[in-house]
Amino acid sequence: MSNDELPDDWPGQVQRELRRFAEARDWPRYHTPRNLILALVGEVGELAELYQWDPPEPPPMDRVAEEVADVLIYLLRFADVAGVDVAESVAAKIARNEQRFPPIEDRPA
Amino acid sequence: MSNDELPDDWPGQVQRELRRFAEARDWPRYHTPRNLILALVGEVGELAELYQWDPPEPPPMDRVAEEVADVLIYLLRFADVAGVDVAESVAAKIARNEQRFPPIEDRPA
Amino acid sequence: MSNDELPDDWPGQVQRELRRFAEARDWPRYHTPRNLILALVGEVGELAELYQWDPPEPPPMDRVAEEVADVLIYLLRFADVAGVDVAESVAAKIARNEQRFPPIEDRPA
Amino acid sequence: MSNDELPDDWPGQVQRELRRFAEARDWPRYHTPRNLILALVGEVGELAELYQWDPPEPPPMDRVAEEVADVLIYLLRFADVAGVDVAESVAAKIARNEQRFPPIEDRPA
Repeated sequence: MSNDELPDDWPGQVQRELRRFAEARDWPRYHTPRNLILALVGEVGELAELYQWDPPEPPPMDRVAEEVADVLIYLLRFADVAGVDVAESVAAKIARNEQRFPPIEDRPA
Repeated sequence: MSNDELPDDWPGQVQRELRRFAEARDWPRYHTPRNLILALVGEVGELAELYQWDPPEPPPMDRVAEEVADVLIYLLRFADVAGVDVAESVAAKIARNEQRFPPIEDRPA
Repeated sequence: MSNDELPDDWPGQVQRELRRFAEARDWPRYHTPRNLILALVGEVGELAELYQWDPPEPPPMDRVAEEVADVLIYLLRFADVAGVDVAESVAAKIARNEQRFPPIEDRPA
Repeated sequence: MSNDELPDDWPGQVQRELRRFAEARDWPRYHTPRNLILALVGEVGELAELYQWDPPEPPPMDRVAEEVADVLIYLLRFADVAGVDVAESVAAKIARNEQRFPPIEDRPA
């Protein structure tokens, strides 16, 4: 994904919305990198709980979707506060993974 | 954010790219929801380690960015496998938070 | 388990040893509750990684044992710094669970 | 701590109690290593939440103590199921740390 395609800006759009949301509540003073990581850990714990007993049926999708959103919101907020460019970092990591793990058809027989 | 604006499709674009990446390596059989949550937990642990001793200087940004990318990649891959619409879930959660936490100027004096 | 039986003191013994260890290295200033929780999260992540791809064979036992020790050491150190009596808390929780979850033979037929 | 001192058996005692507890409820089939790690992650998330906003006052001690107990119970149960000797692993890790991190007075001036 190149950075000049519009869709790359989704993380930035959500981050700007989350920033406005925090500022309207005087919350930025609570949104330090470490606080947000601990909050992220709490939400990852809630996601893990939905799957912990290896249920034969998947957990209710609305609860899974909410936990995914909670994890992602804290991650994007953390990245904004820490100064990480999310779209660029994800694209760079995917590119590195392409190098590290060659696809099957490219492997020596 | 409405779902008919283009930028909303960033999560979907990345998910399609990650899916192609996994398929080209015969990895989808390893990408179960529970496996991906455990992998996500591993990456969140690496992000936490960068901040664990409360360093006076922020950790090297390239390492923070890589851990953010790792967490996000597993989260998006999990959401794809579990059938969660990420952009919609995030937008719905932000809307709910707007209701739950009124901004300061709207509060009774 | 009553608190006047000797074995109850294992957590306290380990905590005293960890405290001496930290003091001999001038580390107590780094051992705040939040720092220790973030360190604990890092070690839980390493334990999760050993199981993330659902290996048909269990992971090497020496690595699993080391991760268990790392998690437990940070948990006991956290509890010491936070002022939690570990043996008492575990005994109290087991007693509460006995009440909350009656054994099968005690359930109405 | 040598393994022939009585206090070393605290982890084993608690593990036997947790095993009886699980067996009386027909739960051992749910207590796989992966399930217990995911449950552990959930409890670590609850502990992290108590500290996430960096409260000026420590969180209520009874809640902290309960989360510590929950984390420790799942960790001990995991170790039992996975076949890890907890007291030995902790003693071995402390001994290794003594080697890796010499105390201040032993360092070259």
